[in-house]
Amino acid sequence: MRESNGSWYQVLSTLSTHPKTDSTSPVPFFHMLERLKTTKREGWRRIGIEHGESIADHMYRMSLITMFAPSSLASKISVAHCTKMALVHDMAESLVGDITPVEGVAKAEKSRREGTTMDYLCTSLLGKVEGGMAGQDVRAIWQEYEDGVTLEAKYVHDIDKMELVLQMVEYERAHNGKLDLGEFARVAERIVLPEIKTWCDEVLQERDEFWKSIGKTPKRLDISEKQKAQQDEYYGNGAAP
Amino acid sequence: MRESNGSWYQVLSTLSTHPKTDSTSPVPFFHMLERLKTTKREGWRRIGIEHGESIADHMYRMSLITMFAPSSLASKISVAHCTKMALVHDMAESLVGDITPVEGVAKAEKSRREGTTMDYLCTSLLGKVEGGMAGQDVRAIWQEYEDGVTLEAKYVHDIDKMELVLQMVEYERAHNGKLDLGEFARVAERIVLPEIKTWCDEVLQERDEFWKSIGKTPKRLDISEKQKAQQDEYYGNGAAP
Repeated sequence: MRESNGSWYQVLSTLSTHPKTDSTSPVPFFHMLERLKTTKREGWRRIGIEHGESIADHMYRMSLITMFAPSSLASKISVAHCTKMALVHDMAESLVGDITPVEGVAKAEKSRREGTTMDYLCTSLLGKVEGGMAGQDVRAIWQEYEDGVTLEAKYVHDIDKMELVLQMVEYERAHNGKLDLGEFARVAERIVLPEIKTWCDEVLQERDEFWKSIGKTPKRLDISEKQKAQQDEYYGNGAAP
Repeated sequence: MRESNGSWYQVLSTLSTHPKTDSTSPVPFFHMLERLKTTKREGWRRIGIEHGESIADHMYRMSLITMFAPSSLASKISVAHCTKMALVHDMAESLVGDITPVEGVAKAEKSRREGTTMDYLCTSLLGKVEGGMAGQDVRAIWQEYEDGVTLEAKYVHDIDKMELVLQMVEYERAHNGKLDLGEFARVAERIVLPEIKTWCDEVLQERDEFWKSIGKTPKRLDISEKQKAQQDEYYGNGAAP
């Protein structure tokens, strides 16, 4: 069974080393984080990029991007809080995997699976570490991202999409135009903040120039109605898509 | 020529897409960060782990570990500052590669190569972004880590070693005892802060239990005199090894 189809406890039962629960040490949690290095981002794997970026790779660059908030945004947010949110937001994927729009898992079910995984990580593994404070903090910042209401959460959601578009264009370049990743470009339309839209437009402009420079036209700038419906279902929680 | 043998400008000249300098946008810098995802940690590659962790993977877990500073340390440091330092400390490797002790590059030369790379990233790529403030901030925090004088820098140096030991034990387990990574264990002796020593001792205890459980004795718990001398040269700046 694919990990992304299961709940965290099903995945946990398959691990050769069972993490110690209720420890006063964070080491069992640190080990669990390794899975974010070894689990590849599913979108790229699905289209044949076998040794693509890991979930940790994606969160790494996102966390750096948060530090470059333009002054119009930086004056209204805590950048350090956003950096931390970027580092935490996909943490549940260490156990439930990277659930993508094409898998037909509704947003509410994805959220439920990830929420219970975060409970396991933050309570069973971190509940007794330093009185449980750090675990509660991680759980709260994950929830803030998931709820998508605060300006900080909207900013990090936008950076999640921005990082995807950067990687999309970089993979297209690396494959010398043999791989057309246009199906991912639509995510750019869901960016909310004008500052991040500006960055993203610059990257999409680079994409146009790249395809023009090799005398080709991207085959799939648009996606099928089915894919659109899947993306709408997946991202469909309004303010924080 | 291996990247780690060259200076940043030599590597830059080999890139198919030349980054735009003096831009008011951080996008060229964001692209450069991709190289931290695609460059593997050299220590593991050298011993035959081809699809091991990236430099970004390593910094990702380090940044999470910083958030779990025990209260005895947390009361004396800015944890957010340490998280940021963990995310920045190996950034120069995006261009000069991961220079490891066995390569015979003296600490001073490694520092010089990395410092000039940071100048390029923070001045040529980031100098005009938002008045250059974010770039200066990144350059300063990298220097603080490199100098290794502040308690924050010592903490992040210790976490750098702690993360290595975690990964070492995880790779040994994943290879079912067919791979003995004992040569990396000596790095644990260079951990300075007692709180991180405690975490590291726990991981080394797990290592002992693992090898015992499969009825084997690690072949190379110690390393050669030559390797020791290389490590001493590499880590030899006193307070912050």
